[in-house]
Amino acid sequence: MSMNTVPERLAALRAAMDANGVDLYLIPVGDPHSSEYLPDHYTSLTYFSGFHGENSNFVVTRTESALWADGRYFVQAEKEIAGTEIKLQRMGEPGVPTVEEYCADALPEGGVLGLCGLTASCQLVRSVQKALDAKHGTIKTLNLEDELWTEGRPALPDTPAWILPKEYAGFSPAEKLDQLRSKLKELGCTAQFVGKLDNLAWLLNLRAMDIECTPYAMAYCYVTGDRAVLFINTRRLGAEAAAELKENGVEIAEYDDVLTFLAAETEAQTVLADPASVNYAVYETLRNNPVLTVKDEADPLLPMKGVKNETELNHNREAHLRDAVAMVRFQIELEERLAAGEELTELTVDEILHKYRSAQDKFIVESFGTIAAYGGNAAMMHYHATPEDHAVLEKKGFLLVDSGATYMDGTTDITRTYPLGPLTEDEKRFYTWTLQSHIDLAKAVWLDYCECKMIDTIAREPLWRHLINYRCGTGHSVSFVGNVHEGPHALNSRNTTRMRPGMVVTDEPGVYETDLVGIRIENELVCVHKADNQYGTFLAFRPLTFVPIATSPVVPGILTKDEIEWLNAYHREVFTKLAPRLTEEERDWLAKKCAAIGA
Amino acid sequence: MSMNTVPERLAALRAAMDANGVDLYLIPVGDPHSSEYLPDHYTSLTYFSGFHGENSNFVVTRTESALWADGRYFVQAEKEIAGTEIKLQRMGEPGVPTVEEYCADALPEGGVLGLCGLTASCQLVRSVQKALDAKHGTIKTLNLEDELWTEGRPALPDTPAWILPKEYAGFSPAEKLDQLRSKLKELGCTAQFVGKLDNLAWLLNLRAMDIECTPYAMAYCYVTGDRAVLFINTRRLGAEAAAELKENGVEIAEYDDVLTFLAAETEAQTVLADPASVNYAVYETLRNNPVLTVKDEADPLLPMKGVKNETELNHNREAHLRDAVAMVRFQIELEERLAAGEELTELTVDEILHKYRSAQDKFIVESFGTIAAYGGNAAMMHYHATPEDHAVLEKKGFLLVDSGATYMDGTTDITRTYPLGPLTEDEKRFYTWTLQSHIDLAKAVWLDYCECKMIDTIAREPLWRHLINYRCGTGHSVSFVGNVHEGPHALNSRNTTRMRPGMVVTDEPGVYETDLVGIRIENELVCVHKADNQYGTFLAFRPLTFVPIATSPVVPGILTKDEIEWLNAYHREVFTKLAPRLTEEERDWLAKKCAAIGA
Repeated sequence: MSMNTVPERLAALRAAMDANGVDLYLIPVGDPHSSEYLPDHYTSLTYFSGFHGENSNFVVTRTESALWADGRYFVQAEKEIAGTEIKLQRMGEPGVPTVEEYCADALPEGGVLGLCGLTASCQLVRSVQKALDAKHGTIKTLNLEDELWTEGRPALPDTPAWILPKEYAGFSPAEKLDQLRSKLKELGCTAQFVGKLDNLAWLLNLRAMDIECTPYAMAYCYVTGDRAVLFINTRRLGAEAAAELKENGVEIAEYDDVLTFLAAETEAQTVLADPASVNYAVYETLRNNPVLTVKDEADPLLPMKGVKNETELNHNREAHLRDAVAMVRFQIELEERLAAGEELTELTVDEILHKYRSAQDKFIVESFGTIAAYGGNAAMMHYHATPEDHAVLEKKGFLLVDSGATYMDGTTDITRTYPLGPLTEDEKRFYTWTLQSHIDLAKAVWLDYCECKMIDTIAREPLWRHLINYRCGTGHSVSFVGNVHEGPHALNSRNTTRMRPGMVVTDEPGVYETDLVGIRIENELVCVHKADNQYGTFLAFRPLTFVPIATSPVVPGILTKDEIEWLNAYHREVFTKLAPRLTEEERDWLAKKCAAIGA
Repeated sequence: MSMNTVPERLAALRAAMDANGVDLYLIPVGDPHSSEYLPDHYTSLTYFSGFHGENSNFVVTRTESALWADGRYFVQAEKEIAGTEIKLQRMGEPGVPTVEEYCADALPEGGVLGLCGLTASCQLVRSVQKALDAKHGTIKTLNLEDELWTEGRPALPDTPAWILPKEYAGFSPAEKLDQLRSKLKELGCTAQFVGKLDNLAWLLNLRAMDIECTPYAMAYCYVTGDRAVLFINTRRLGAEAAAELKENGVEIAEYDDVLTFLAAETEAQTVLADPASVNYAVYETLRNNPVLTVKDEADPLLPMKGVKNETELNHNREAHLRDAVAMVRFQIELEERLAAGEELTELTVDEILHKYRSAQDKFIVESFGTIAAYGGNAAMMHYHATPEDHAVLEKKGFLLVDSGATYMDGTTDITRTYPLGPLTEDEKRFYTWTLQSHIDLAKAVWLDYCECKMIDTIAREPLWRHLINYRCGTGHSVSFVGNVHEGPHALNSRNTTRMRPGMVVTDEPGVYETDLVGIRIENELVCVHKADNQYGTFLAFRPLTFVPIATSPVVPGILTKDEIEWLNAYHREVFTKLAPRLTEEERDWLAKKCAAIGA
């Protein structure tokens, strides 16, 4: 049977469902580690549906199929599933069922839903099972993804693993294991199963390049009071890394032995397992071992990792300045080549950026696939230009560039929206309002009782005033030498984490008008202590990103005096910080970009 | 034994505690209906402690006593308990125990805590009992307040009760009972015990004047699928009101028979009882009746009442305009008499206000005790001038006046801060920042997913920016012909209610610097639908209050263009709405007060 198209793949999937007595098959976006960004090997949802977005689920019944996408992906998903049987479920819109509601509705009485226990988190399986109870439905774990997707499937990742030196990380693996053990004691646990790659990377300072743009290693870790067992494909660990782990009290076992090991464990423990990040297969193995008591609890590594230590922050600041030099050189070259009349495309942007970033000291890799989106393409928040489908840059309108890199001493994420020539009045106003949102958050001051969701409204108000919203968070946390989306904090309408000093978050409001324009201005900010007085403790942000923000599109009379003061002070700081790192010619260029604006 | 002073009263209380085998005695601020404002008969906490604030608890042990006060009352409470043994517990400050923690700490192992079951809510008793469990403590219900406070104690209130006509209320009692019964069905209940006076007042359109400034009747109501029994002192119900209730299907029983009735009830019901608003004695009676199943659930009348209907809102707007005329006349007289060199005090303010308010059509009563606070007195948010202790107004600094009235067609609550002469630079800046906070909330636009706590930050940000906060909510709901503090919504750091069209809320940020200055600017706002578009439903506020806000203290260069535009537009509307109701001379005065200001 040919398996080249989505319809063919769905036909094959249905045949396999029939053969296995399964009525519905659920494919989440997922790998065994609840990763947000997946190794190519685990992009089964894309293989079967054609959709490339994050945070999705795909359900296939005998007669129909449905794909869930969140607000960032509505436009892209419609495009990618066009012409197939797949129905788009726009998450969060009125009348749209959750994946659980849909499954409960689609399942025949007493029916069977199939899924893969390794790629589904325990939490997902639980909530689906709960929804199916009314129909006396059962869940069957099987792995039709592995069975059907064999041809041309990317191999399991297997990149060299290494240990981030303490000089950068601030603490050694042994020190961090001690911190975790204290935390576990507070939580009434004696052990933890660490399933998420980012938490594991932080705990053991372990890095690799298993996931595109994300320097993590596919691995698990089982931590008890006196042991720490790392499950990893051992071939990939060099002698040096293996020795360093050993010195830090970490035992090494084979990745594929994890279930066998947990099933055979004989030492009684109360094991913390976060149902949101431990996969169903591991969780059930823990639960079925009679000497282990499983305790559901949010992974304590998440908040530990979310507050950056001083060593990490100092390195991070330096990495951002080198990244800024690359951004400046990129913009100069872009402007010169456009002025010279050269035909440039969205793909050229990525090439130029890579040239300058990779020339910077300590560069490892881009921190995510560059989003270079011209004109209406930028209305898709997570647009990616491809050799087959990309725009040519014209001397008008906006070019949105969202990019970043991971260096040995930090990870960056920055968006600038560049005017390439004349702008419409709408484009200018949208730009100015976006900048206003950006600045209002950057200069916000708040009492430390505030939850992220309460700070989020401060950023949105300047756009809400004009009946505009962006269908995504205002900002997300960024790892240290890691991925660009981590927890526990995030600026959005739901996050109830209290922002604390040392937390890093992006500030990236935007305006997105389908097919017309997309504008986003993004800096990374770090939360800092501002003052203590009779009213309590006040917190604020300080930028980590220092790259000029285009001022030519700003419509006079919209920004307030305070906002203009912030912008001018920011540009003074950009110039002071970057000037010593630039050539004289580049400095002259920067001085112009950093010129103060009036009201 | 003489009972004239707090020490004497505490000695008597301790003697009674000994006689009853009680180690700790807890006196909450409370009446049998969990009222915020109490009939004088129930002000036992004040009688025994000397403190006059709301939201308090008082605990007496054999050797010490402690009083809880929230941020609004820190300054006042210190003053009122000065010279006694009583220790102030500043609620919410670091290291301050909750009343439960304090009781658990102070109770001897196996000890007994006494309290009155009628004046303590079920919820309070539960949380105290839970805290005492660790010491195997028990709670004994007895009534030392009634036993000891006999001399000079105000009688139980007994004012004439009447029914607010449907013309004002929008719906008849029968219609509202039907609405409630539908709601109960949704909640899986067949009956409800209504304990709170404001909810009862809304349900049956019942009014009286049992509590100072609050037109409610002391009563309970037991509602089933086909019955509604009102427990009230029947002498006070006129023939007309009694007949109208009967027509609406309401049975009438004696107030004092409520426990007997509930104990003897023979019809099986699932009774909704809100532990937060049903007193402990009633709750236990319901629970001990074997045919009744008690279901703990938030009182559904609260959200029903919180969204005002169109009839209520239209009347309310009209009541606010008459109230505004009184406010204008008050300010004119105040200015004239001060200019004439007359000696005026904070007490005079109340007299003048009462003269003009009571002359307005449909006036019933002030909606709360006027707060007229001059200079440093205004730093106490809930300051009350008394004949013994009040300030003389001088021709400098600020006079803060927070007042309101209940009319047949609405209840008002307004604060203005008047400059009486030269101001310090600090006073001017504080005033301008307060005004900025007020305006930013008044002109806010938000998506309808926002909880009150998320909107609250928009109001505070202009003060937080200057490291200032106010230790109270930004605003509270106001009843229709009722009390000035109601739920379910309130603008503060904790309230998670979503603001909905038809909700009325005050907008009253302020700056309070102990002994120096107090500034507050308060309008009532109503939440309105603003727009639906691709981003969702946007909501906004519209003012209900139309009274000039002093512009002379405004420091140029602080308010933004948008804020100045809001203020000028507001003043244009004030003038347009009030001018037809004023004399020519008053109109000229108003025109000056409403003059537009520049940047």
